[in-house]
Amino acid sequence: MGRTIYVINPNSSETVTRGIDAAIAPLRSADGPKIACLALSEGPPGIQSQRDVDGVVAPLLRKATELEDHAAAFVIACFSDPGLHALREQSRRPVLGIAECGVLTALTLGQRFGVIAILPTSIPRHLRYFGAMGVTQRLAGDLAIGLGVAELADDERTFGRMVQVGQALRDTHGADVLVMGCAGMARFRASLEQAVGVPVVEPTQAAVVMAVGRVRLQGT
Amino acid sequence: MGRTIYVINPNSSETVTRGIDAAIAPLRSADGPKIACLALSEGPPGIQSQRDVDGVVAPLLRKATELEDHAAAFVIACFSDPGLHALREQSRRPVLGIAECGVLTALTLGQRFGVIAILPTSIPRHLRYFGAMGVTQRLAGDLAIGLGVAELADDERTFGRMVQVGQALRDTHGADVLVMGCAGMARFRASLEQAVGVPVVEPTQAAVVMAVGRVRLQGT
Amino acid sequence: MGRTIYVINPNSSETVTRGIDAAIAPLRSADGPKIACLALSEGPPGIQSQRDVDGVVAPLLRKATELEDHAAAFVIACFSDPGLHALREQSRRPVLGIAECGVLTALTLGQRFGVIAILPTSIPRHLRYFGAMGVTQRLAGDLAIGLGVAELADDERTFGRMVQVGQALRDTHGADVLVMGCAGMARFRASLEQAVGVPVVEPTQAAVVMAVGRVRLQGT
Amino acid sequence: MGRTIYVINPNSSETVTRGIDAAIAPLRSADGPKIACLALSEGPPGIQSQRDVDGVVAPLLRKATELEDHAAAFVIACFSDPGLHALREQSRRPVLGIAECGVLTALTLGQRFGVIAILPTSIPRHLRYFGAMGVTQRLAGDLAIGLGVAELADDERTFGRMVQVGQALRDTHGADVLVMGCAGMARFRASLEQAVGVPVVEPTQAAVVMAVGRVRLQGT
Amino acid sequence: MGRTIYVINPNSSETVTRGIDAAIAPLRSADGPKIACLALSEGPPGIQSQRDVDGVVAPLLRKATELEDHAAAFVIACFSDPGLHALREQSRRPVLGIAECGVLTALTLGQRFGVIAILPTSIPRHLRYFGAMGVTQRLAGDLAIGLGVAELADDERTFGRMVQVGQALRDTHGADVLVMGCAGMARFRASLEQAVGVPVVEPTQAAVVMAVGRVRLQGT
Amino acid sequence: MGRTIYVINPNSSETVTRGIDAAIAPLRSADGPKIACLALSEGPPGIQSQRDVDGVVAPLLRKATELEDHAAAFVIACFSDPGLHALREQSRRPVLGIAECGVLTALTLGQRFGVIAILPTSIPRHLRYFGAMGVTQRLAGDLAIGLGVAELADDERTFGRMVQVGQALRDTHGADVLVMGCAGMARFRASLEQAVGVPVVEPTQAAVVMAVGRVRLQGT
Repeated sequence: MGRTIYVINPNSSETVTRGIDAAIAPLRSADGPKIACLALSEGPPGIQSQRDVDGVVAPLLRKATELEDHAAAFVIACFSDPGLHALREQSRRPVLGIAECGVLTALTLGQRFGVIAILPTSIPRHLRYFGAMGVTQRLAGDLAIGLGVAELADDERTFGRMVQVGQALRDTHGADVLVMGCAGMARFRASLEQAVGVPVVEPTQAAVVMAVGRVRLQGT
Repeated sequence: MGRTIYVINPNSSETVTRGIDAAIAPLRSADGPKIACLALSEGPPGIQSQRDVDGVVAPLLRKATELEDHAAAFVIACFSDPGLHALREQSRRPVLGIAECGVLTALTLGQRFGVIAILPTSIPRHLRYFGAMGVTQRLAGDLAIGLGVAELADDERTFGRMVQVGQALRDTHGADVLVMGCAGMARFRASLEQAVGVPVVEPTQAAVVMAVGRVRLQGT
Repeated sequence: MGRTIYVINPNSSETVTRGIDAAIAPLRSADGPKIACLALSEGPPGIQSQRDVDGVVAPLLRKATELEDHAAAFVIACFSDPGLHALREQSRRPVLGIAECGVLTALTLGQRFGVIAILPTSIPRHLRYFGAMGVTQRLAGDLAIGLGVAELADDERTFGRMVQVGQALRDTHGADVLVMGCAGMARFRASLEQAVGVPVVEPTQAAVVMAVGRVRLQGT
Repeated sequence: MGRTIYVINPNSSETVTRGIDAAIAPLRSADGPKIACLALSEGPPGIQSQRDVDGVVAPLLRKATELEDHAAAFVIACFSDPGLHALREQSRRPVLGIAECGVLTALTLGQRFGVIAILPTSIPRHLRYFGAMGVTQRLAGDLAIGLGVAELADDERTFGRMVQVGQALRDTHGADVLVMGCAGMARFRASLEQAVGVPVVEPTQAAVVMAVGRVRLQGT
Repeated sequence: MGRTIYVINPNSSETVTRGIDAAIAPLRSADGPKIACLALSEGPPGIQSQRDVDGVVAPLLRKATELEDHAAAFVIACFSDPGLHALREQSRRPVLGIAECGVLTALTLGQRFGVIAILPTSIPRHLRYFGAMGVTQRLAGDLAIGLGVAELADDERTFGRMVQVGQALRDTHGADVLVMGCAGMARFRASLEQAVGVPVVEPTQAAVVMAVGRVRLQGT
Repeated sequence: MGRTIYVINPNSSETVTRGIDAAIAPLRSADGPKIACLALSEGPPGIQSQRDVDGVVAPLLRKATELEDHAAAFVIACFSDPGLHALREQSRRPVLGIAECGVLTALTLGQRFGVIAILPTSIPRHLRYFGAMGVTQRLAGDLAIGLGVAELADDERTFGRMVQVGQALRDTHGADVLVMGCAGMARFRASLEQAVGVPVVEPTQAAVVMAVGRVRLQGT
């Protein structure tokens, strides 16, 4: 019987997984579905390239197969939604992707959404995805903070760049809501929202909200 | 202090309100925000025309003003989302509309969504709204069951028409997910899904899911 | 019998109404339909918020009901086109909105239209409307002059801001035609066009042109 | 000094020109700009192919050069708007095309417009044009009556086909307004509207309405 | 040094590979780049699901790594373009996908393209891809022949279904050019074109044409 | 019998024609179709206005008629693709336009294409064309170098402006591939690509690649 919503971080970083776990904690309820966050031990340290995205699908599907019988739903916690449609084919459970849910949730909070990416090379991948989703008309812009993995460890610098990029999206591109384009930015959400003055969507939260709803409504 | 998610049915029908209440019941949790469904006594018996849509905004805003201090969030439970943006201006609480949330949720369940409307005259209004949302590329079609208020009381006939329209959306228009284009269809969701064989989104459920999430995440 | 085109300014400002009247004066012809401009005494001093937009629909519909028997057509002279579709339902006469006609007319004068709004908060509302109209691909940008009601009384300052915004729309956003995003800017049209060097559409003029045509062609 | 709006039918058919003249007659006013309809003697008997469209541009520009000093505005009365942008470059007068104005006017009368073409081979040309105009999202469909020139002389048969195509656009494609995709269909407008039950736009009327407005407003 | 264009069929079927090889044979020239077609021995017998698509990326990238030093360019010969962007990241050579090139080539042959898919379950995947490509406005429709692997062995039946689907795309959906939505249909191209009467694009041919051009132009 | 691909430069400049000839030289193969580049002696010295575009169609069609029996295919080598659809109607041979092929080829090299135009007045014409092609969603921007004919003779200055515009398209507009918006820029392709650091498409090359492919595949 399906009992737990599994939030799978397809990279192997336990730090990111703990950040996700903290971010979605308020969505756990006494009588609700359990929610477990886990890293994919076979995943790369970070998912940065299209190769990384495509490469984690196989281990992700294997992990989901193991979990299927105990799963209430799956959330894929990487902003490229790797394996989203493959897992939907494979599993009998609801499957949500954080990019999809993050963007759709942003559409309820502003007319033009801006996306904060880590790397410039991710932007064409995001644009392809927003095109596939058919929501490009609502996109204000997608800009990268442009920091490497080592530099991301410096929280102050990272946050500073996020604020700069958020302000550029707001002022130059006309964004009135921002989406964090990475599962690993969760801890900055509230302060970024305050600093930039527009709503900021943390996409794993957005996806878990939908997953909880889907699970609670099953069979009704 | 904000405590309760108010789901406001802007028409005055208690039957519809009770149907909504039943539909969203599984979304109540022991430690979660309370959820109250209420009809707008000043509203018309049903919201069928653009005039009806525009006309309920003022009483809806008044009702929301009364509820503001006790509100955790508002859900506007009419598929035309009357007053959605006006209430967002007025209230300090999250405000969700069922058409917006219903359609966005459908985008996570299929590539092309079909909408089942009550009346043909609602279709241009829906199309304007989907255009404003920027999701027209994902729309398979919007078809009406074409029954008057009196005929809607005949459940068997209504359901039969919904199945016909759902099948036409699936087979002729290519829909792989359906959205019920009215808050008063909730009781048919599960059987319609079974009859047509594609996921069916009940839009008030979709909006309450998002409202619960928004409330639980506030301040994080 | 329908005789007069009623141009209804849904705010209560007689100054704005007089400005509209002056702007459309050249469209009166000896043998044409009469054209009368009137303010809505029940309207707010200015229409700035979505609440204002929704709030004027009821008095507007009432006023139009009174005028119906003498009306040849109605023009709603507020750039949010409040009540446009409700009045189309209600009336047997042609009903034109100035935002709709202003934008459509701009499409015959340039490839990318820019809109000059009063307030930044109006921009998302405009964008929703252009999306509903399905013309977003032709939009260069929508920028606000950002002056409050008191400041708007200072004509020199207002015009200066309009020129700045018009130049930004032309140079940064690629607009080759501008639409004035408010019925109250009519007196600046010619000088703005000269100052910015691209055609400027005064939207009430655009709507009255279409209304006159519709009336003259009735029954042919 | 500019005095007359010249409506140039780029084919050489006097019958079509007379039909246009009758259609726009109600737009003449005692004190308004004169309106003269003329056929292009160098034009082909009918404009059916892209070659015909491109081929009439040169004689059209020459004719317009001759008329320039007496012209208040030009209307190009062929549904492919041949030479529209070239004439806009060349002339100091307003230049309107009937396809552009016909479609834009239709957008004020319904949410999805259908187009009745003469020949199937015109449809891709129309679609390219609607794409260039950026209004494809509002297009319900474009269908041809598929009659050759000789058959078009049979009014009863032609009208019968127009009704069939109009009904298909309404019922199968969802059109709630129709545009006649040829300047030579003007005489059928009123009866087609009655037969199909949705508004029908005669595009030369639509363009002359805008031309009259443009002329009257010049210098204001 | 790069010498050979490698056309990689990501499934393991030698029959399909031989069909591809025959289809692209006319693109070999005496002094041109060599063109080699090969199956991916690690690939599945056919690529039918999103899981199959995602699953072949890793072996495809490995195979391409082996071939890199001898490669002039790569063509990925599966209509889902698996690994297209990952291989573009990895390789210093031009990389073309047959779906991308097939659709883009179709845009030079007709205004609305129709796609003939094998299975209904592929259609949402195709639609996501066309959305990512930003060409949805040109799509007439995507329909499946709906035959299983065993049934596909029956050429007569397969061809008969392709003709039926092609005619439906032409007549009901308005397609004036068809794209074969599978690398394994190459042998039917000419007879399908003749049977349906509109141009038919064989996508591997389209991609190899572009690959040859890219290789010949390198360094100019 | 069709033997030669005729690349017709619709202006009369032999310098431009020689530049094109050099650019496409690598596409000639020993056993391939012959490729001949020729200027249109009746064409203007340069094609700068819509009038120029429309004006060259007639001589272009005449020239193509003369060449038809010896032609394998036609390429129209002007970035406005004059006469593209008229020649497709007239000829039994494949007909390719350099703007169409240049843009479509760019879509295989980057997610957002930027266009370098000569004159600002060409930009609205380009935008109409990209709209007709249905690829506007992929357009990053279209900017002009803004040099007159005399100034273009100064190669250093011209190249300097192209680099500036290319960098602006890349940095401000987000282009990751550039298309040269004129057949006369061919000699700068490689150095521009190096200077800006993103792929640069020379559109005549792109069209000849497709023409060669079309010819080689005929009858298969």
